[in-house]
Amino acid sequence: MSKGNINVSVENIFPLIKKFLYSDHEIFLRELVSNATDATTKLKHLISIGEAQTELGDAKIEISIDKKAKTLTIKDQGLGMTMEEVEKYINQIAFSGAEEFLEKYKDGKNDTGVIGHFGLGFYSAFMVAKQVEIFTKSYKDEPAAHWICDGSPEYTLVEHDKSDRGTEIVLHIADDSKEFLEEGKIRGLLNKYNRFNQVPIKFGTKKVNDPNHEPKTITDKDGKETTEPRKQIEVDDIINNTNPAWTKKPADLEDEDYKNFYRELYPMQFEESLFHIHLNVDYPFNLTGILFFPKLTQNLDMQKDKIQLYQNQVFVTDNVEGIVPDFLQMLKGVIDSPDIPLNVSRSYLQADGAVKKISGYITKKVGDKLSSLFKENREDFEKKWNDIKVIIEYGMLSEDKFYDKAKSFALYPTVNNTYFTFDELIEKTKDSQTDKDGNHILLYAANKNAQHSYIEAAKAKGYEVLLLDSPIISHLMQKLETSGDGKVKFSRVDADHIDNLIKKDDTVISKLSDEEKEKLKPIIEAAVPSQTYTVQLESLDSNAFPFMITVPEFMRRMKEMSATGGGMFGMGSLPDMYNLVVNTNHDLVSNILNSTDETEQKRLISQAFDLAKLSQNLLHGEELTNFIKRSYELIK
Amino acid sequence: MSKGNINVSVENIFPLIKKFLYSDHEIFLRELVSNATDATTKLKHLISIGEAQTELGDAKIEISIDKKAKTLTIKDQGLGMTMEEVEKYINQIAFSGAEEFLEKYKDGKNDTGVIGHFGLGFYSAFMVAKQVEIFTKSYKDEPAAHWICDGSPEYTLVEHDKSDRGTEIVLHIADDSKEFLEEGKIRGLLNKYNRFNQVPIKFGTKKVNDPNHEPKTITDKDGKETTEPRKQIEVDDIINNTNPAWTKKPADLEDEDYKNFYRELYPMQFEESLFHIHLNVDYPFNLTGILFFPKLTQNLDMQKDKIQLYQNQVFVTDNVEGIVPDFLQMLKGVIDSPDIPLNVSRSYLQADGAVKKISGYITKKVGDKLSSLFKENREDFEKKWNDIKVIIEYGMLSEDKFYDKAKSFALYPTVNNTYFTFDELIEKTKDSQTDKDGNHILLYAANKNAQHSYIEAAKAKGYEVLLLDSPIISHLMQKLETSGDGKVKFSRVDADHIDNLIKKDDTVISKLSDEEKEKLKPIIEAAVPSQTYTVQLESLDSNAFPFMITVPEFMRRMKEMSATGGGMFGMGSLPDMYNLVVNTNHDLVSNILNSTDETEQKRLISQAFDLAKLSQNLLHGEELTNFIKRSYELIK
Repeated sequence: MSKGNINVSVENIFPLIKKFLYSDHEIFLRELVSNATDATTKLKHLISIGEAQTELGDAKIEISIDKKAKTLTIKDQGLGMTMEEVEKYINQIAFSGAEEFLEKYKDGKNDTGVIGHFGLGFYSAFMVAKQVEIFTKSYKDEPAAHWICDGSPEYTLVEHDKSDRGTEIVLHIADDSKEFLEEGKIRGLLNKYNRFNQVPIKFGTKKVNDPNHEPKTITDKDGKETTEPRKQIEVDDIINNTNPAWTKKPADLEDEDYKNFYRELYPMQFEESLFHIHLNVDYPFNLTGILFFPKLTQNLDMQKDKIQLYQNQVFVTDNVEGIVPDFLQMLKGVIDSPDIPLNVSRSYLQADGAVKKISGYITKKVGDKLSSLFKENREDFEKKWNDIKVIIEYGMLSEDKFYDKAKSFALYPTVNNTYFTFDELIEKTKDSQTDKDGNHILLYAANKNAQHSYIEAAKAKGYEVLLLDSPIISHLMQKLETSGDGKVKFSRVDADHIDNLIKKDDTVISKLSDEEKEKLKPIIEAAVPSQTYTVQLESLDSNAFPFMITVPEFMRRMKEMSATGGGMFGMGSLPDMYNLVVNTNHDLVSNILNSTDETEQKRLISQAFDLAKLSQNLLHGEELTNFIKRSYELIK
Repeated sequence: MSKGNINVSVENIFPLIKKFLYSDHEIFLRELVSNATDATTKLKHLISIGEAQTELGDAKIEISIDKKAKTLTIKDQGLGMTMEEVEKYINQIAFSGAEEFLEKYKDGKNDTGVIGHFGLGFYSAFMVAKQVEIFTKSYKDEPAAHWICDGSPEYTLVEHDKSDRGTEIVLHIADDSKEFLEEGKIRGLLNKYNRFNQVPIKFGTKKVNDPNHEPKTITDKDGKETTEPRKQIEVDDIINNTNPAWTKKPADLEDEDYKNFYRELYPMQFEESLFHIHLNVDYPFNLTGILFFPKLTQNLDMQKDKIQLYQNQVFVTDNVEGIVPDFLQMLKGVIDSPDIPLNVSRSYLQADGAVKKISGYITKKVGDKLSSLFKENREDFEKKWNDIKVIIEYGMLSEDKFYDKAKSFALYPTVNNTYFTFDELIEKTKDSQTDKDGNHILLYAANKNAQHSYIEAAKAKGYEVLLLDSPIISHLMQKLETSGDGKVKFSRVDADHIDNLIKKDDTVISKLSDEEKEKLKPIIEAAVPSQTYTVQLESLDSNAFPFMITVPEFMRRMKEMSATGGGMFGMGSLPDMYNLVVNTNHDLVSNILNSTDETEQKRLISQAFDLAKLSQNLLHGEELTNFIKRSYELIK
């Protein structure tokens, strides 16, 4: 029997790090800047607790490119390392200095903002460099160190005469990674990952107008005035904002500050957001952030602007699936939390307790914000409804807790732009829209234009007609219908003639006798395609249309639900079925019945049927061309 | 100065492997099955070259679950390991046995099919197991070994009395990974990753009818016949097909074999594919596979069936972005190549030379196949056109080499279902459809129904009208127009009156004098909204419609291109603009001009304008309801 220790062979680990661990090579810069940031914030902390006897000064991180020497340099003014520390931290891969540091100074956790998640960070430099040099001088009174390594396990470590505090990492960029010597590339990466970095990052200099110079105006001999050019001075080009809005207290921010932050975050976005939600929680997890409800837009670029996930002000990803509930993925903004595990699978994330709590917290905050917006300024909330309804309706369908909260502020607009809550709608319509069997019918249209004549017929009865046009509204109606006492039912205005949709006890007088009706029905049935249309004779108001096409509610809604996921399986592919309602009290219908000229009878039915089809947008192609020809004849 | 070796600390590497390297925990099973497969194919190779003196036998891999003991076992009959080899291969993490093996037996590379890509494979077991045991007996005459490790760097290695050749890995599943003790879960994983594994995998047993038992039929005293039940026997449940179609030679496969493979690959897919392309190349890269052109379908499940990428018959991913050209992403099937780098970023993939060559090879093979299908059976190709056109048109737009090849087989169908190639179309129409200025006008419709009256007008002139309804067709038209001599132009049939679309030298007699026209124009202009409609008086055939709405080609096409990416920036949001063509030779127009009753004049214009709008589907809502009311009055 033998016992032993598993031996990790470095020759094989290096290529693995290069190949697997960071599949995106560009990550190296984020890692090195994070290390430099750590070194600076750690020093600041040590000074604050009296452990380091030095001045922090105007500590910043400097990034520079030397195209001739083919080097990229990251230099900080942080705590630096002694020879001994280089041995310890750099030469022992995966030894996370941050963890040991945290262990030692536990109480200062939230202030220091140590990024401890990027473990192997430093070694990611070898993904793009053939040789890496470190020049480092500790804040302690000890000699500086110079470390050189070419990516093989051998390294050289010597004393150095560097006199200023901090660490300078020089990457000798490999031939296959020359892109990282381009200013544009590096600026792009800094802008992606570090534009809210905690420590200022200098990347070159820029010219600005000299604030101390007032250009003189000179009058020449002809009396012409010329102003001398403004003097310009070179200043450091600081590429980041170290105090983004989400790190501040909500109480310290005005509405304008949130607007400015939205513009800062999405410079290509010209629309303002509708409103924001400031997230700020310490326990049981740490999370800050600002979410924005955007204005709906067809602009595809806008959809690229996603919620960004940060850890201690360093960009991680804009894929927040699993962290932010699905129905809020369309929001914009920033979430910053050290408590979200990175680099794990999405299914793992969804099962993680902390992440579940974060997702629940975000849902609750969004619900609370919407609720208070509704209560504080309902008029304004109604104006925003069209932009936010899809998010809210989706949330009501997918999260029961959100459904319970949203029931009080979800709105149901009518075609006349009146906005009801569900309870208000029930109260308003319960007397007039309850049928003789006690069913309370809520009428709606999906399109004001397409269903115009049906809407008018319902309005003429004094009914409220909702305008519900979200893609998932049929699912929500289904949920609302089944959540109550089963008496409330939704019906689209064209599901039947309005007198049948809400049946009252009124007796209707029929102009035609039963015998006449029996005679009429086969005449009309013979003239319309029987697979698609079911003829339905009704004694209606003589001023109502003579012919009318209706779409039964159940089938149509199941088909719609089937198309957006749900409903009854396979119904989406069923053919469309319609009813042809014939108003036996209309003069035209009497004329059809009494016509002795069969050609004339057919012509009347065709023209009336075509007009009925027109109002359901069902007349197309050759049928439409023929109808137009016939109609021109009628007026010529 | 000091020199030294970087020291990787195992305590820190283990959690890293668990956390980062395989973000998807389920991968462990693929890794272990791959190792077992390697061990078996390696042994087979050693036997074949006379290095191993043993019989391979019916070597398979057995997977079993013991729910009580909470273990998952993977057992093979491969070459096994001696104590010394366990020390060497298992205890030295990341030491890839496969590479050493390959180095030793270089010539046999393609036969052995060693999976050398899954480096740290074995250790992924610790993602789901709290303890791992290995029982292994080498094919060499040496004692078996028993290795135990609980995921810490310490392990125990002892001799064992295992007598049968091969390796048995026993995973003591951790409490947070209990799902991997469920039969359904393991079966699902085997089916996902290993259903075409090179070595048979046994997962439990199943009952099948005994082929050696013929059930007897017994006649009882009442003459009633009963057949005794068929005897059943237990057999190994082999879950994989070790010889999938793509590993065979195309010459050995019938059409039916490809169909069967399509069904095997996508069991939930009931439609057959249109045709297949068998990929088979050795140099300069190794790649096999079968691609299928699917029938277009609205079925969303179908879209989930993507091209699957394998390495040596082990499933890797169904994200083939970067490997398969964009325009072929809608195809189905399998690609198997050891030469595609895994676990690297997509941008890296796209820059990789080998991958570029693979992508180019696939494009070429697809082009060749389409070309030969077109040549061999044009009629059949025409039938398939509607299903494949989007792929081909997208390819023509995105890959110049494909454009050059596809020009000879891309089809342009007419509204009468005649299919032309571009050259045939040019030849067929060059005489009749060249206008007086030498422009060769190709007419098309986007929708047979919606543009019915315009199509009829063009057909009446003897012109060919194409039916071009792909979403990206406007981009392709633009490319075709600018690729030639600049004389060929596409025009939709409703872009203007047909006489203006292809202007001939015919002189048209006008019924109205210039003075009458000058009087007529403002009357009509006053009755139609001037921001949207430009009135255009034309002396046309007196049988043509009196009013007609046209949509100028350039603006419409730019708007369409803008909507699908391209065209002129921002044109997508411009309002729609139409021309109202008034046929001054039509009787109705004379009536309008000569009407002395202003109300009657307005009524005539309204009705004619509404009819013109109808034929462009522009009459909606209240306007439509009013039109229908007016029209019922006319026939009552």
